[in-house]
Amino acid sequence: MNRYPIGIFDSGVGGTSIWKEIQKLLPNEDTIYLADSKNAPYGEKSAAQILQLSIKNTEFLLAKGCKIIVVACNTATTNAIDELRRNFKVPFIGIEPAIKPAALQSSSKTVGILATKGTLSSHLFHSTSENHAKGIRIIERDGFGLVPLIEEGKIESEEIRNLLQIYLKPMLEEGIDYLVLGCTHYPYLIPVLKELLPETVKIIDSGEAVARQTMSVLMANNLQKNSEEIGICTFYSNAEIEVLQSLLGGTDANMIVSFLDF
Amino acid sequence: MNRYPIGIFDSGVGGTSIWKEIQKLLPNEDTIYLADSKNAPYGEKSAAQILQLSIKNTEFLLAKGCKIIVVACNTATTNAIDELRRNFKVPFIGIEPAIKPAALQSSSKTVGILATKGTLSSHLFHSTSENHAKGIRIIERDGFGLVPLIEEGKIESEEIRNLLQIYLKPMLEEGIDYLVLGCTHYPYLIPVLKELLPETVKIIDSGEAVARQTMSVLMANNLQKNSEEIGICTFYSNAEIEVLQSLLGGTDANMIVSFLDF
Repeated sequence: MNRYPIGIFDSGVGGTSIWKEIQKLLPNEDTIYLADSKNAPYGEKSAAQILQLSIKNTEFLLAKGCKIIVVACNTATTNAIDELRRNFKVPFIGIEPAIKPAALQSSSKTVGILATKGTLSSHLFHSTSENHAKGIRIIERDGFGLVPLIEEGKIESEEIRNLLQIYLKPMLEEGIDYLVLGCTHYPYLIPVLKELLPETVKIIDSGEAVARQTMSVLMANNLQKNSEEIGICTFYSNAEIEVLQSLLGGTDANMIVSFLDF
Repeated sequence: MNRYPIGIFDSGVGGTSIWKEIQKLLPNEDTIYLADSKNAPYGEKSAAQILQLSIKNTEFLLAKGCKIIVVACNTATTNAIDELRRNFKVPFIGIEPAIKPAALQSSSKTVGILATKGTLSSHLFHSTSENHAKGIRIIERDGFGLVPLIEEGKIESEEIRNLLQIYLKPMLEEGIDYLVLGCTHYPYLIPVLKELLPETVKIIDSGEAVARQTMSVLMANNLQKNSEEIGICTFYSNAEIEVLQSLLGGTDANMIVSFLDF
C-alpha cells in the first residue's frame, strides 16, 4: 500500500489549502485531489445529499488506489465521516474547526467562528464547542455566499470584502481576539481578513494540524511512502480548471490538473 | 474490531504513565497493559535484543485480540517500531521525547533531556533533534540507574534523589528552562524533580500527546469502541505486582492486575 496515493476531496477548490500543508509536510507522497466544484457549496445542502456526494467522491478516490482519504471539507466531515468510516476500510482524516487551540489561547475569552451553515448546525460542531470551549463565548457566523465567490476565483473582490465586513461586525463588537476559519475555502481569504481585522485578532485554520494528523495516521498504519522521490500530485475538477490552477499558484512538472466530468 | 482492547506494552511499570493518559481520554476503551519488568531496563540492551522483546510483547497482545498497539516505551519505539509496523497489520503508536514543544517554547534556547542510553543513541532521536530543535542547545543526560529503582518502587528514595542531582547539575549550569522526560518511567519522578529544580524550569513529558494521537488513529481507522460503558483494564506483569499496583494508585472494579510468567 505504501506506494499508493493520499486521496483528498472537497466540495470544490478550498481543500487545496489543506493539500498545500500535506504536500509541504510530506513532499514525497503522491496525492490525488478531487474538487467536486459542480456541487459546491455543500454547506447549503441536506445531510443526506452531503453523505451521498461524499460516498461518490470516496469511491472515485478508492478506484484510483488511494491508501487514505482526507475529507478536506468541514461540512462533509461533520455530516458524513462517521458513515464513511463504517463503510470503507481505509483510514479517514477529517477537518474540524480549530476551536480548542483558539479557546485555550484567547485572553478575551471570546472567539469568533466563520463556517458554513452545514458545519455550524452539525452535532459534531456542537459537541466540540461544548467539550473544548468551556467558559468561552463563541460568536458564530455562517459565511453564506463566500464559497461560491471563491469557487469563481473572486478572492479579493468587492463582494467578498462586503460580505466579510457584515460577518465580522458582530464578532468585533463582542471583542473576539481569535477568529477560527471553519471552512477549508476560507484560508484563501486571509489577506482580505487581515486588512479588515485589527492586529489584535489572530486567525486560526486547521491546515497544519490536519497535515500532522495525516502523517501520524500514515505512520501508525505503516502506510508512508518509503522513497524520498518527490510525489506526483494529480488534481481533478468537474468545473473549469482555471480557478483551481490559479489557487495552486501555478503548476510544475510534478502536478497534473485535469477536467473530468464526474 | 471496535470492541477489542487497546494493547500497551513497556519494559516494566513506567508505561503506566501513558496508560493513565489514555484511560483519562478514552475511559470507555478496554486496555491490556503488559509490563515486561523481568527484562527491564531495555535502555541498556542491544537494538537486536530490544527488537526481539518488542516482537514477543506484540505477539502476546495480538493473541489477546488487541486492535492497536501503543509502544509505551521510548527505547522500544526508537529501536523497534519500524520493524513492528512492517511485520504486523495493526496500527502502532510510539513514544518520542517531546523535544519539539520544548524547543518551541524555550526562552533560554537551552533544553535538557533525560532519557535512557538506548533512546539517546538511536537514529530516530538524532533526526528528531536535528529537525525540530534548530538553534536550540540540547543538554542530554543518560538517566542510568533510574529505571531499575523505579521498578523497585523506590520513587522518593535517597538514591533516586542523589542520581537526579548528578544528572541535573550540568543542565542547570547550562541554563535550561525546559526539561524533557524521554522515558515513560520518569513522570513518576516529577514530585522529586520539582523539589530539585528551580521554579523557572518546566517539565514536559509525552503522555497527553500520545493519548490524543491514539484517539486520532483509532478514529481514522474506525476502531473506537462505540459503547459508552466504562472499559475493563487488565495489567500483566512478569515480576511481583506490588509496585505496579502502587503506581496505579490502587485498583477498582474495572481493573485487574495479574502476575504472568512470560
